[in-house]
Amino acid sequence: MQELHTFIREVKDFPKPGVVFKDITPLLADHNAREKALQGLMSKIAGQHIDVVVGVESRGFFFGTLLAAAIKCSFVPVRKPGKLPFDSLTQVYDLEYGQDSLQIHKDAIKKGDKVLIHDDVLATGGTAKAVCELVEALGGEVVQCNFLMELSYLNGRDRLKGFNTEVVVTY
Amino acid sequence: MQELHTFIREVKDFPKPGVVFKDITPLLADHNAREKALQGLMSKIAGQHIDVVVGVESRGFFFGTLLAAAIKCSFVPVRKPGKLPFDSLTQVYDLEYGQDSLQIHKDAIKKGDKVLIHDDVLATGGTAKAVCELVEALGGEVVQCNFLMELSYLNGRDRLKGFNTEVVVTY
Repeated sequence: MQELHTFIREVKDFPKPGVVFKDITPLLADHNAREKALQGLMSKIAGQHIDVVVGVESRGFFFGTLLAAAIKCSFVPVRKPGKLPFDSLTQVYDLEYGQDSLQIHKDAIKKGDKVLIHDDVLATGGTAKAVCELVEALGGEVVQCNFLMELSYLNGRDRLKGFNTEVVVTY
Repeated sequence: MQELHTFIREVKDFPKPGVVFKDITPLLADHNAREKALQGLMSKIAGQHIDVVVGVESRGFFFGTLLAAAIKCSFVPVRKPGKLPFDSLTQVYDLEYGQDSLQIHKDAIKKGDKVLIHDDVLATGGTAKAVCELVEALGGEVVQCNFLMELSYLNGRDRLKGFNTEVVVTY
């Protein structure tokens, strides 16, 4: 699946100087590559029962919805504060400088639900860790944290120790 | 398809007092209802050739990606300013109070591409109109503006005159 590299565009100095952003829009724009990426993500959960796919705002929504459709299960968005209209649970997490937070609807996960967490990229792991905490706080069981890409030099897996972490493309 | 109403939750006073927000998270959470909604959206474009589905940030990403997968075509996100990393075109549009803007990657649409624009809700039509203008500025042809829901009392169709506008659930 490393050949999917060719559909991930590297954009220098975005969102800030010195960062090379991995742009997945060429992958989304190509039906065959997008399907291949979806198959890659699906291969990581082969044989495992999943009740809910949680997709993380907003690039986690693309393959998150496709995964839920392929698995034929529930899709739940985790969003930035103020976006979810109903009764929500909030998790604050640390960024390089400062803090951010994410929310999930309290009725989105039932006790014992087997949950697949999906986002496009595993960087420092802070976001995914916060999502794991939201899912577990609602009584869900995190079956896997599943990413399209991993920036392995940021050691995000350390932050996700204890969680099954799978990626399709590694940088 | 009006029965999909039962999967759309009405949340009072969100995002501000006096507004009844239509929450599609129960629809996303139910695989069968989500599939039915997708079939409803697909039925609106039956027989029409589509090269690109444009999904509008961020609730248009859910069914936007599913539509592109079902049609087997390109998916392109239209996003809020500062989110797209590559060379982008910007369209400013009026809100009730003030202005907002949306961006699309300049290489996302090729001249002559037949484009389906998807968002979750047609309200005043301002957002969709801005997206039509972005698509046409890049040489694309808007085949249809396709929404899950329409708040018909806001007369968004007036703003989209000249564009083929289809919805699955009408309020």
